[in-house]
Amino acid sequence: MTFSLRRLLIGDPLQTSQASHQKLSNVVALPVFASDALSSVAFATEEMMAALLVAGAVPYFGLAPWLAVGVVLLLAIVVVSYRQTIAAYPGGGGAYTVAGENLGPFAGRTAGAALLLDYVLNAAVCASAGVAAIASLLGNYGVDIANFTIPLALCFLAFIALVNLRGAKESGVFFAIPVYGFVFIVALLIAWGGVLLLSGHWHPAHSARELAVARVAGEHEVTSLAPFGIFLLLHAFSSGCTALTGVEAISNGVQAFRDPAPKNASKTMVWMAVLLGGLFIGVSILASRAGTIPPNAQGYEETVLSQLGRVVFGTSPLYLVLQIATCAILVLSCNTSFADFPRLCSLMARDGLLPRQLSNVGDKLVFDRGIIALAVAAGLLVIGFKGSVHALIPLFAIGVFLSFTLSQAGMVKHWLGEKSRGWQGKMTINGLGMIATAVVTIVFACVKFRDGAWMILFLTPALIVLFGAIHHHYQVTARQLSLEGYRPRQRMRNHVLVLVPDLHRGVIPALQYARSISVDAYALHVLIDPQREARLREKWTLYGRGVPLQFLPSPYRSLSAPLIEFIDDLKARDPGCLVTLVVPEAIPTAWWARALHGQTALMLLWKLRSRPGVVAVNVPYHFDAWLDDDELHALDNERMVAPS
Amino acid sequence: MTFSLRRLLIGDPLQTSQASHQKLSNVVALPVFASDALSSVAFATEEMMAALLVAGAVPYFGLAPWLAVGVVLLLAIVVVSYRQTIAAYPGGGGAYTVAGENLGPFAGRTAGAALLLDYVLNAAVCASAGVAAIASLLGNYGVDIANFTIPLALCFLAFIALVNLRGAKESGVFFAIPVYGFVFIVALLIAWGGVLLLSGHWHPAHSARELAVARVAGEHEVTSLAPFGIFLLLHAFSSGCTALTGVEAISNGVQAFRDPAPKNASKTMVWMAVLLGGLFIGVSILASRAGTIPPNAQGYEETVLSQLGRVVFGTSPLYLVLQIATCAILVLSCNTSFADFPRLCSLMARDGLLPRQLSNVGDKLVFDRGIIALAVAAGLLVIGFKGSVHALIPLFAIGVFLSFTLSQAGMVKHWLGEKSRGWQGKMTINGLGMIATAVVTIVFACVKFRDGAWMILFLTPALIVLFGAIHHHYQVTARQLSLEGYRPRQRMRNHVLVLVPDLHRGVIPALQYARSISVDAYALHVLIDPQREARLREKWTLYGRGVPLQFLPSPYRSLSAPLIEFIDDLKARDPGCLVTLVVPEAIPTAWWARALHGQTALMLLWKLRSRPGVVAVNVPYHFDAWLDDDELHALDNERMVAPS
Repeated sequence: MTFSLRRLLIGDPLQTSQASHQKLSNVVALPVFASDALSSVAFATEEMMAALLVAGAVPYFGLAPWLAVGVVLLLAIVVVSYRQTIAAYPGGGGAYTVAGENLGPFAGRTAGAALLLDYVLNAAVCASAGVAAIASLLGNYGVDIANFTIPLALCFLAFIALVNLRGAKESGVFFAIPVYGFVFIVALLIAWGGVLLLSGHWHPAHSARELAVARVAGEHEVTSLAPFGIFLLLHAFSSGCTALTGVEAISNGVQAFRDPAPKNASKTMVWMAVLLGGLFIGVSILASRAGTIPPNAQGYEETVLSQLGRVVFGTSPLYLVLQIATCAILVLSCNTSFADFPRLCSLMARDGLLPRQLSNVGDKLVFDRGIIALAVAAGLLVIGFKGSVHALIPLFAIGVFLSFTLSQAGMVKHWLGEKSRGWQGKMTINGLGMIATAVVTIVFACVKFRDGAWMILFLTPALIVLFGAIHHHYQVTARQLSLEGYRPRQRMRNHVLVLVPDLHRGVIPALQYARSISVDAYALHVLIDPQREARLREKWTLYGRGVPLQFLPSPYRSLSAPLIEFIDDLKARDPGCLVTLVVPEAIPTAWWARALHGQTALMLLWKLRSRPGVVAVNVPYHFDAWLDDDELHALDNERMVAPS
Repeated sequence: MTFSLRRLLIGDPLQTSQASHQKLSNVVALPVFASDALSSVAFATEEMMAALLVAGAVPYFGLAPWLAVGVVLLLAIVVVSYRQTIAAYPGGGGAYTVAGENLGPFAGRTAGAALLLDYVLNAAVCASAGVAAIASLLGNYGVDIANFTIPLALCFLAFIALVNLRGAKESGVFFAIPVYGFVFIVALLIAWGGVLLLSGHWHPAHSARELAVARVAGEHEVTSLAPFGIFLLLHAFSSGCTALTGVEAISNGVQAFRDPAPKNASKTMVWMAVLLGGLFIGVSILASRAGTIPPNAQGYEETVLSQLGRVVFGTSPLYLVLQIATCAILVLSCNTSFADFPRLCSLMARDGLLPRQLSNVGDKLVFDRGIIALAVAAGLLVIGFKGSVHALIPLFAIGVFLSFTLSQAGMVKHWLGEKSRGWQGKMTINGLGMIATAVVTIVFACVKFRDGAWMILFLTPALIVLFGAIHHHYQVTARQLSLEGYRPRQRMRNHVLVLVPDLHRGVIPALQYARSISVDAYALHVLIDPQREARLREKWTLYGRGVPLQFLPSPYRSLSAPLIEFIDDLKARDPGCLVTLVVPEAIPTAWWARALHGQTALMLLWKLRSRPGVVAVNVPYHFDAWLDDDELHALDNERMVAPS
């Protein structure tokens, strides 16, 4: 039953040979790899403005475009640096690989921890932002879904997890329409908005008075460091830097490009940066002029992009398109986490840093355990942070910038080691990238420490320690199981015992089996009810097949305790011996009937698992759970005929 | 870890021989067996008044004492009838036994179903009423715990379940203080209240105006049949009949009395009836005059007994004593369910009507599964009915009256069969009891049908069908497992296969074991990753100990599917053969490390359980989960010395 439900949700299994390695043209690759980066336009401006809201008597929203320019400059540095990574690692140069290969395992593990955390956060942020986009849309049609934010975000995650568990082929169209649609509608928003602004046909979303009220409300969020201007500026800048998340995706997927792959990937990366930078600056300029109020804990619910959409598009259907496209690109961005997290988990599991099972490919050719782990972790984050993008943002992007820094540092080491033609120039570029991203990482960690960044600063080293412990355990295991210098043990005596709860047809096969593997097998009965001894002895003389029977008293009515004591005793008297415990089990054919028969045999085997030198043998006897009266009579007649 | 937590909560195990059979004097037996019956004084009057509240323009509370007199007359009939049951069944005559023995299995199962449902309801009602008593008390000190009703009632149930799981000796004092305390304080309440009433120093709890408001509010609860006077009267009478629940307890426990047990039990039963009748009528008279308003769905929260306590005792500490004693006797009454439900379950399980496991005595000499089942069922009722006594009452007591009827009917049959001296008189008495309780059962079912009695009228037959199905399954099982006409099968060929995931030290013992039980054992490797074939073959030639190795391809990367296919194939080619699957399992010594090693072997064994003729052999190899560097070096050195 569980099996067919699984089939219905996940679909039929796929053969190993069905794995495909399709090559993508640049036009198709751009949406596939850039959805994550571009989707940040949906929330990066808003988060910058939320930080500026409390900066002074009148919100310094005018600073937003300048901060956006700063973020885009950083983007340029990162992209130029990563173009070199692409050239050097045409097989795909994720931060985990680049840092690990060049700077040693510790750097690799650090990058791995940072990335894993960030993938989880990306999934949670995108799910929450996607719900916010829909909530803003419906809010303008008078439907309030504020109370359903968390369940909706969870459904969102469950849906994407399911799509990924099905292992559906990622067709180019699946990505192209939402991504290009989003780029187009936001570009149109910026162009149209620019015309309106310059021509003076501009009706702000909120009055100055409403802004002032929101500012006062927003100030409650800022705790002690509020009056310090430079702090707030850096805070806003850090929030804007979330726009850079996902930029590295192309460098991980160079292999998917058409030949010459590195060149095509580089070109696509530049295009992505141009689109992202243009949209981000454009939205930031307009939003700062449109009287939009970023949603915050005090009840402003509508997203900045939605407010801007209403200012520019009014009630025309284009507003509807904007919101749907926003939600769609956020789904795809979330999907990127679901593709990358399990892949990184499997890489790290193969290196012995995570449980090995994470490297197993499921029957749909996907890393199903990784997908489920991500869905659960992101779901818990959504619940813990009540599905609020604003609450999650301080935790977000530190991981990405840390991994940027480590990756660039790895590249610096790479050029230093290689010293190929022009290595000085390349090293300088990567060095600049390293310094810039390191500064941002530190700024981010400091200014957002109290808002939640401390969790990441605690979890990252905790994960690194965990990776180390898992790695050590696997090494210890491998050394112990190695056959090097292996000297097989002498043949030892095997005591064969049969545990008999009673004597009936279900027990006989176990007695036969025990006899067939050892001539001096004997039976044990744990005597929970002393009154049964005489009856069992009597039956035994008739049907016991000559196997000796021994009774173990059980004053506390436990089945396992006297048995374990008996086995320990046996092993004490004959050290190094093997004990084979044969357990007969009468199993009804129907699953519902199993509830009517205690699973004592199974529980006993579970308890004996941790005892060395005990081999458990399960001899099943199957019988029908249900027979109607005719069938019962037939059974009786059959037995009457049989000679005893 | 789970083990020691269990020890802490439940305590050390008890030996079978520690079970005691203490005999009780009448003074001690009364509280032990009568707590359930006497505790109904806490809610029976209140429920009668709740039904009368909506009867007319002014509540007909004046009818309450007369209805109480009617209930007490019924009590007298029941008690006289039950005295005869005590005489006829000195070994304890529960309705399940009396009905089953005299009227056949169907009547027995009906009584069993009715009683089981009623025990669950009793636990839920008492837990809810206990919380209501405490809530009323605290409410008068300005503490409102209305929002915590459900969790408190659940804690209440969990506490009583835990006490019963510990199997604590039920000492007489444990029962005597709360029960006699409750009897004393309620008797004092009645006496003092009577004096106040007669002397005119009487200050009603609520004004006539408040009563009128409550009446209008209460009318919302009555749906269509409201104006029909006789219906409302019967409704109120039925609610009052809940006072009779638990009356039968003494007849179940005759064995616990001192000799002559039946005579002492009879005498105690009369005493119980006198106390119960007196308190019930007394409380009903005073409550009807005190301007008390029964709590209902519209927000009157305080219990009638608490309101009455305030009218009579004012703010004196006696009011506090009343509420605490009420709560205490309700705990004991709830405890009665926890003693009787598991006992009845075990009786019925022994008769093959419920899962056999329910008849197992746990290591504390109690039927632990029955206790847990009752706690869960009563907890679900509390949650489902939001901890409201008023909502649960319509479901309550039908079961008790149905079992009274069946028990009395059984006694009628008993006298008819026995025809001992004076049988006509005895039969008449039991016949009268049967008719009276049958009429009440039918009235109850009709007038409370819409309020919730329909659930019981649906669940009782459903349980009877379930009992029949379980009984049939056990019979089918017994017939199939019977050794009667047993003809042992011929010795058949045993194919021994070893499932090898890889070749390492953890696998070698399994290969040795397989070889020791069959000379032509062979190994199987399910080839999930085709690249591993060559390496495993190479290793096998070095360390394979001459066991032949066969590869099974697995295009869908499943471990179990190719293996099950192979076994099915084998059995098709050699019908009736036995297949022994030896599964090596490398188990780390620490539990945490097990999460790092897939439980594939265990999952495989689970999947193979349902295949006939497959014997699974688990050969464990234990290794250390953690070694520090020194220990690892020591291990390596040791191996260097050993000859290969």
